[in-house]
Amino acid sequence: MTTATKNITFQTKGNYDVLDITLQVTREVEESEVSNGIVTLFICGSTAGITTVEYEPGLVKDFGDMWDRIVPRDMPYEHNKAWGDGNGHSHVRASMLGASLTIPVVDKELALGTWQQIIFVDFDNRPRSRKILLQIMGD
Amino acid sequence: MTTATKNITFQTKGNYDVLDITLQVTREVEESEVSNGIVTLFICGSTAGITTVEYEPGLVKDFGDMWDRIVPRDMPYEHNKAWGDGNGHSHVRASMLGASLTIPVVDKELALGTWQQIIFVDFDNRPRSRKILLQIMGD
Amino acid sequence: MTTATKNITFQTKGNYDVLDITLQVTREVEESEVSNGIVTLFICGSTAGITTVEYEPGLVKDFGDMWDRIVPRDMPYEHNKAWGDGNGHSHVRASMLGASLTIPVVDKELALGTWQQIIFVDFDNRPRSRKILLQIMGD
Repeated sequence: MTTATKNITFQTKGNYDVLDITLQVTREVEESEVSNGIVTLFICGSTAGITTVEYEPGLVKDFGDMWDRIVPRDMPYEHNKAWGDGNGHSHVRASMLGASLTIPVVDKELALGTWQQIIFVDFDNRPRSRKILLQIMGD
Repeated sequence: MTTATKNITFQTKGNYDVLDITLQVTREVEESEVSNGIVTLFICGSTAGITTVEYEPGLVKDFGDMWDRIVPRDMPYEHNKAWGDGNGHSHVRASMLGASLTIPVVDKELALGTWQQIIFVDFDNRPRSRKILLQIMGD
Repeated sequence: MTTATKNITFQTKGNYDVLDITLQVTREVEESEVSNGIVTLFICGSTAGITTVEYEPGLVKDFGDMWDRIVPRDMPYEHNKAWGDGNGHSHVRASMLGASLTIPVVDKELALGTWQQIIFVDFDNRPRSRKILLQIMGD
């Protein structure tokens, strides 16, 4: 059994930027020596989250509308009072969605459903350079 | 260290069907060669999620009531306008809850609390054939 | 590749007690034989959750305010009617946030961002003795 550590890096535009990273993750798994095991995706940062979705513009909008309902941008946040960077809602959303996702690898393929993609969700209020760490483990 | 890939398959009734799958997962772990490690549960699909709960009818209802508050069925979804299948809320709920859960295996047992069960939550608006993939890894 | 099972135990005060457990997790990883792999953190219990956050008092308050909005304490819960322990909201919040978190270990270090800490969130309505299980796997 082996462990391969990989990074995916990219630029985001901020203010709920949703990126489909399925292809990048698929390629890193294909290039690794692992045929059967798991890939752990982890976001190094506290204003973005990771999950899966059927990636199409309608659902990206619908998912964002939910965040606007339950963690609105335009309400008072203690974080903003103390730090003045205006991204209190970004932090709260990120903690709720979660920073890690683990996907099985079976016969060199990610075990995703046909209409299921991996998305990186940037909640921050400005463009960022982002890094996702991939820990690929298995035989 | 070994890796064992297993599937759990079942039928769901749709419209927030919540199934306790603890026993099936426990059996797959017991039948594997792994005594100490982890089991990664992954949902292949984009309208269902996985988590743990004290599985009793009251909490199943209470958990569903939360979803009805934050991601109601009867509101406009862009997904529904584009695809007409009426399950926009199912997708949004599934992305929020998450598709993966990783549970430690210690001395052949799942590390669950006494009142903690694993649940598969089907948010789709129709009956489905479902598959959960189990990746069991360890010694 | 090896597997090391560790426990972190502590007392909580109840009613949304948020503890930064980054240091304890870091120490357990340092004392293990694993340099590259993953650590799976799992909560044995159904009224607490785990995630990451920039741990500062403002965001702890902001994150709690979100829970008060979407899963209020003072509303009827079926769980409370049946069991009378008044912690229906604690269970619903815990199931939503999730019981597991997996963090890559790279060169003996947790792959956390600079402003990213691991938090244990106790939603229960009374003080509790708590246990988090750490499964450290890798080379």
